[in-house]
Amino acid sequence: MSIPWDRLLAERAARIRPSLLVDFDRLPASDDLILFSGGAPPLECLPTDRIAEALAETWRAEPEALWYGESQGYEPLRAAIAERMRRRGVAVEPKDVIITNGSQQGIDLIARLLLEPGDRVVVEAPTYFGALQVFEPFDARISTVPVDECGMVIEALERELASAPRPKLIYTVPTFQNPTAVTLDPERRTALVALAERYGVPIVEDDPYGELWFDRPPPPPLRALHPDVLYLGTFSKTLAPGLRVGWLVAPRRLMKLLVDAKEGADIQADRLLQRALTRVLEGDWFERHLEAARANYRERCTLLLRCLERELAGLAAWTAPGGGFFVWVTLPEGVDTDALLVECARHGVAYIPGSAFYPDRTPRPSFRLGFTTLSPAELEEGMARLGRAIRAAVRPSLA
Amino acid sequence: MSIPWDRLLAERAARIRPSLLVDFDRLPASDDLILFSGGAPPLECLPTDRIAEALAETWRAEPEALWYGESQGYEPLRAAIAERMRRRGVAVEPKDVIITNGSQQGIDLIARLLLEPGDRVVVEAPTYFGALQVFEPFDARISTVPVDECGMVIEALERELASAPRPKLIYTVPTFQNPTAVTLDPERRTALVALAERYGVPIVEDDPYGELWFDRPPPPPLRALHPDVLYLGTFSKTLAPGLRVGWLVAPRRLMKLLVDAKEGADIQADRLLQRALTRVLEGDWFERHLEAARANYRERCTLLLRCLERELAGLAAWTAPGGGFFVWVTLPEGVDTDALLVECARHGVAYIPGSAFYPDRTPRPSFRLGFTTLSPAELEEGMARLGRAIRAAVRPSLA
Repeated sequence: MSIPWDRLLAERAARIRPSLLVDFDRLPASDDLILFSGGAPPLECLPTDRIAEALAETWRAEPEALWYGESQGYEPLRAAIAERMRRRGVAVEPKDVIITNGSQQGIDLIARLLLEPGDRVVVEAPTYFGALQVFEPFDARISTVPVDECGMVIEALERELASAPRPKLIYTVPTFQNPTAVTLDPERRTALVALAERYGVPIVEDDPYGELWFDRPPPPPLRALHPDVLYLGTFSKTLAPGLRVGWLVAPRRLMKLLVDAKEGADIQADRLLQRALTRVLEGDWFERHLEAARANYRERCTLLLRCLERELAGLAAWTAPGGGFFVWVTLPEGVDTDALLVECARHGVAYIPGSAFYPDRTPRPSFRLGFTTLSPAELEEGMARLGRAIRAAVRPSLA
Repeated sequence: MSIPWDRLLAERAARIRPSLLVDFDRLPASDDLILFSGGAPPLECLPTDRIAEALAETWRAEPEALWYGESQGYEPLRAAIAERMRRRGVAVEPKDVIITNGSQQGIDLIARLLLEPGDRVVVEAPTYFGALQVFEPFDARISTVPVDECGMVIEALERELASAPRPKLIYTVPTFQNPTAVTLDPERRTALVALAERYGVPIVEDDPYGELWFDRPPPPPLRALHPDVLYLGTFSKTLAPGLRVGWLVAPRRLMKLLVDAKEGADIQADRLLQRALTRVLEGDWFERHLEAARANYRERCTLLLRCLERELAGLAAWTAPGGGFFVWVTLPEGVDTDALLVECARHGVAYIPGSAFYPDRTPRPSFRLGFTTLSPAELEEGMARLGRAIRAAVRPSLA
């Protein structure tokens, strides 16, 4: 007898959500596939010079960054983050912040702390697939609440909170949501926090895009309304995903346990990059970087919306983002955007199909377009290809 | 009603093992406490110049390291690791390797993939407390196998494997073990792998110290004996813990699932440091660095053993390491080294008590001394204090 991997994996494997990146490899090969799948700053906007400079300064000043220490994260970085959050209306002190490997690890630490197998977790439908990648292996039962143009539908949320067994968490991306780009309006923010309090269910607020608005800032984070909200922030979207530096603002009652959970997960975050980032946040460089990024993304988004109008008017509906990285496109009921993706790839263009953003993974008529990683020329050409592919595939079937 | 944190945490909190670092803060305060708790290269031996140089080269050549990508890890780094393992007698290809945030995250990914709540995991007693920090939150039932001067006692292991329910994992540090410094001898290595195969239970081989031998290399890793062994390596002990770069060599049947689990945990490892490390591993620099480290640690270990002989002969027994970072000291039966630690701290010296290395956390007569982070002068002074504290506390109680 040897190790019976298939038997050992039989139950677990089904619960580990496959990576989207790997699945993309299964599309028809193309030399110049234009990918609308990206959810990251464009390569040419990564502040490599500023970060390289900050890293070099760190090396000279703090070689001890290569050692063990600071499981909660580098205090001056936590202080800089707290100060930025205070400017957004959130009363936070450095001791309320733990540094994580991107907000993805923040979701994971919360799940470690609060979830038992079989617990219910409420998420938006559609929702960020990375959150599903965390909750599913914890054997959580996922309940969904629909999203409309003003965010999570509060009546549907209350039905979920009132039904037994009581959910353990509400996970939400309330600002420039991934994938829909919708922002929860101020009235619903108040209602959501009141409901969470009434039913005693913690809110996990994932906020990667809140600082990347186009014309005006969004409402303050939910965390501004209640200190029991678990807030997740990240530099992956404002600076660079490869940094893997995010943060979690947590109620004080939880902090020591979260630090213990972080140590169990991987001992500590990257101390070198935390120090370099602290330098990057000094002065007004970061604010100017954000202003440039906002203008850049707004321009790309405007172009994408113009192309959508040109290519798919009358055939699809879509959201008009106030910030963030995505447009959510919905084709007529019955269209399967998993199948359509293969057709699109044959035309040299790809998106992320709606199924990725729902716990049940069944095909949907929607898909997500990311506009930040493509140049204006690529956006134009990609949308022309997408228009051709969709008109060819969808129009006849509706005729 | 607000969020009932105490009720929500009631079950989970008890299962998250507290950090040792935080617990050290509870000792009597001292201005110059000499800590034998360290398990890391000394600050002055961190190769900061070489890593700074490699990072600077990386910046110039590969700014795209700041983006998303390579969830399994940077291929050239995986190739360099595979090549090093082949030289140690282990047949590994780059596709068998996944890069992790230190080996701690490797243990966590394995647990995610293979453990169901209530599953049994077999560990050595004593064992690395970081592994317990992983297994306990997964609600694993921990079974222990004693360690003698030749490593895990194989007859005791077989009793555990034969008892129901069948364990899901065997976790072992077979080479210069943490905390005992003991190395599993070649006959037991063969017997361990044969037993694992016979009972169909995967072995997790954690090998942070295997390259840090003093006089002669240890036997090849268990992974050389069977491709189903899950092997964990790290640069935390050979280069610097702050890098947070380790690796997991896994059976091919598991790799895609492990990559998916890595994405769920934190998307990807630090791409910048992976590229810099790849440069550090080029040429013979790393081999020369290892030779210097071995000589350095051997010297400190020799000094520590000489001090032990001087301070505690007749009062304690201890292991004589062939490599690694630790000496395991055992006082007479009945001595409580948790209580003794408070006395030692009053004398200005601290160790990690044996209780930390056992799942049941009950006080033991043993403790761990780490010798790599202290200078010869600190080692001498620290051992003089330890001798005074222990003789004062233990001799009278035995009289």
